[in-house]
Amino acid sequence: MELLQHYGKLLDGAIATSIPNTPPDNLYDPLRYILSLGGKRLRPALTLFAADVFGKASKEAVPAALAVELFHNFSLIHDDIMDEAPLRRGQQTVHQKWDVNTGILSGDALLILAYRLFEGYRPELFRDLAGLFSKTAMEVCEGQQYDMDFETRNDVTIEEYLTMIRYKTAVLVGAALKMGAMIGGASAEDQDRIYQFGVSLGVAFQLQDDHLDAFGNPETFGKQVGGDILANKKTYLYLRAIEAAKDVEAKELVHHFNGSPLEGQQKVDRVKELFEDSGARTDIKAAIADHTAQAIAQLEALDIEEKQRDLLKGFADWLMNRNV
Amino acid sequence: MELLQHYGKLLDGAIATSIPNTPPDNLYDPLRYILSLGGKRLRPALTLFAADVFGKASKEAVPAALAVELFHNFSLIHDDIMDEAPLRRGQQTVHQKWDVNTGILSGDALLILAYRLFEGYRPELFRDLAGLFSKTAMEVCEGQQYDMDFETRNDVTIEEYLTMIRYKTAVLVGAALKMGAMIGGASAEDQDRIYQFGVSLGVAFQLQDDHLDAFGNPETFGKQVGGDILANKKTYLYLRAIEAAKDVEAKELVHHFNGSPLEGQQKVDRVKELFEDSGARTDIKAAIADHTAQAIAQLEALDIEEKQRDLLKGFADWLMNRNV
Repeated sequence: MELLQHYGKLLDGAIATSIPNTPPDNLYDPLRYILSLGGKRLRPALTLFAADVFGKASKEAVPAALAVELFHNFSLIHDDIMDEAPLRRGQQTVHQKWDVNTGILSGDALLILAYRLFEGYRPELFRDLAGLFSKTAMEVCEGQQYDMDFETRNDVTIEEYLTMIRYKTAVLVGAALKMGAMIGGASAEDQDRIYQFGVSLGVAFQLQDDHLDAFGNPETFGKQVGGDILANKKTYLYLRAIEAAKDVEAKELVHHFNGSPLEGQQKVDRVKELFEDSGARTDIKAAIADHTAQAIAQLEALDIEEKQRDLLKGFADWLMNRNV
Repeated sequence: MELLQHYGKLLDGAIATSIPNTPPDNLYDPLRYILSLGGKRLRPALTLFAADVFGKASKEAVPAALAVELFHNFSLIHDDIMDEAPLRRGQQTVHQKWDVNTGILSGDALLILAYRLFEGYRPELFRDLAGLFSKTAMEVCEGQQYDMDFETRNDVTIEEYLTMIRYKTAVLVGAALKMGAMIGGASAEDQDRIYQFGVSLGVAFQLQDDHLDAFGNPETFGKQVGGDILANKKTYLYLRAIEAAKDVEAKELVHHFNGSPLEGQQKVDRVKELFEDSGARTDIKAAIADHTAQAIAQLEALDIEEKQRDLLKGFADWLMNRNV
């Protein structure tokens, strides 16, 4: 979406200067490194977007947007350690390029730097922004904990899974938008609406990611199609299939996720059949549509011009209908 | 010091309730655990103490004091991972009792919870407290980084070492006091003075710890006397001895810290001789006295009653003359 690219470009220069240019280098170099790996800058762009929608020049929202981006990268550094991930955006992760200790400490520093970015706002706004930031950050930690807990549990419910993805990924989308709305001077009601818009859209987006991971087009998806299945990841599709499948198919599915007799593409193909036959694929599509509709519904009552409402709708359409 | 014990007791109940009593347990149980290990609660007690000194009922300072204690424990959890320490206060460290991932994530949560404790203060005070907290937290991270960097460097200067201990341990003492002064309504000048009092005293205390680690009374010191020497830790005594010793003794000292021919108590005894003969012991005593005097000097100009000034002096005396 062109508009978000525009905001992303606005941020790129500021991101580069958001890390102190002082010693100790071993603390700050890893932060410059991870921020230089790029990424879509989607979350901070949403903060600028929301400030614009509510009539404030987006540059006033730049520090808050940077805080969102720094927080996101903090969570990437620490999550990559926890997941023992060697690569991030095709490059070495921080703990891989340096070491685990460097990843822990520079991640901590990045979280603190994110808080510092709010200090230029007037006191009431500082309190509101930092308060929302803290609430969101705690939820992201809780989401990460649930995600880790689920790996060793066999009784995760769909409801628990939805809570996990809401905390781990969706609330930051909502918070990014709400911060822009706060800076733009939106009413408390409109702040809540745009927050809910972001959270519902974030859940829809994550469910779509689950769907595309199994059923996406290998040429455009960007990740390995079937990756979740090969990693035995209990996504919505798996949890729903276990619930909805006939007993014998449910048992077969559990079996595939606990040392399958099939390997590689054969396993992926068979599991996908089970996802289809159980109705789980139909159900996840319905859930994606439902959460997207919930998001769009929040926009109707917003006290903004139609042109701005159309921009927000356009964003939702773009996000949910990317050609993958 | 009885007064600090009184404040510490005021805090103990509040500390127990500062961690959310909600799921996920795997995130919050480790936090309740580390906070239950006790410790002197010295830093948060100083926040209550300073609020009292400037005439505010200390209970108004309780949330800020808790933030100081939570931050301190956050840094213990992450530092213990980095140092691969199995024990803390005679009990298992968090990453030892659970695992490294739990230590990373629950540490992150503790840092965020610390920020949340400021939210009940009025907006200007919230901004000032959170701002000082962030500045201090960044310095603590920088201090930890310097400490790790120094392990593999052979050219650390005394000045660099003093910067490291100021950041890693002393600024939090200063900040704990300054937060109390902010809540107590002290002037900006008095806030600065009590901050400098705390920082100078914190440096003096850490230098004294270096001194006692080599020359303390084994029966009362609490840690193994000679522990720093056996761990080849480049403390003030070592760095100063290298600078001040004659060439042949300096070389011998470097040798003892890089695979000494002596072991155990023999090594400790010989290194202590070198610390004495080079004048390093005399110099560290002078540095301790100097930083303590700088701390006390800050008290003279404080706009408070003599009785309160005497209490602060009494605290400095108590801290620097504990019978160890």
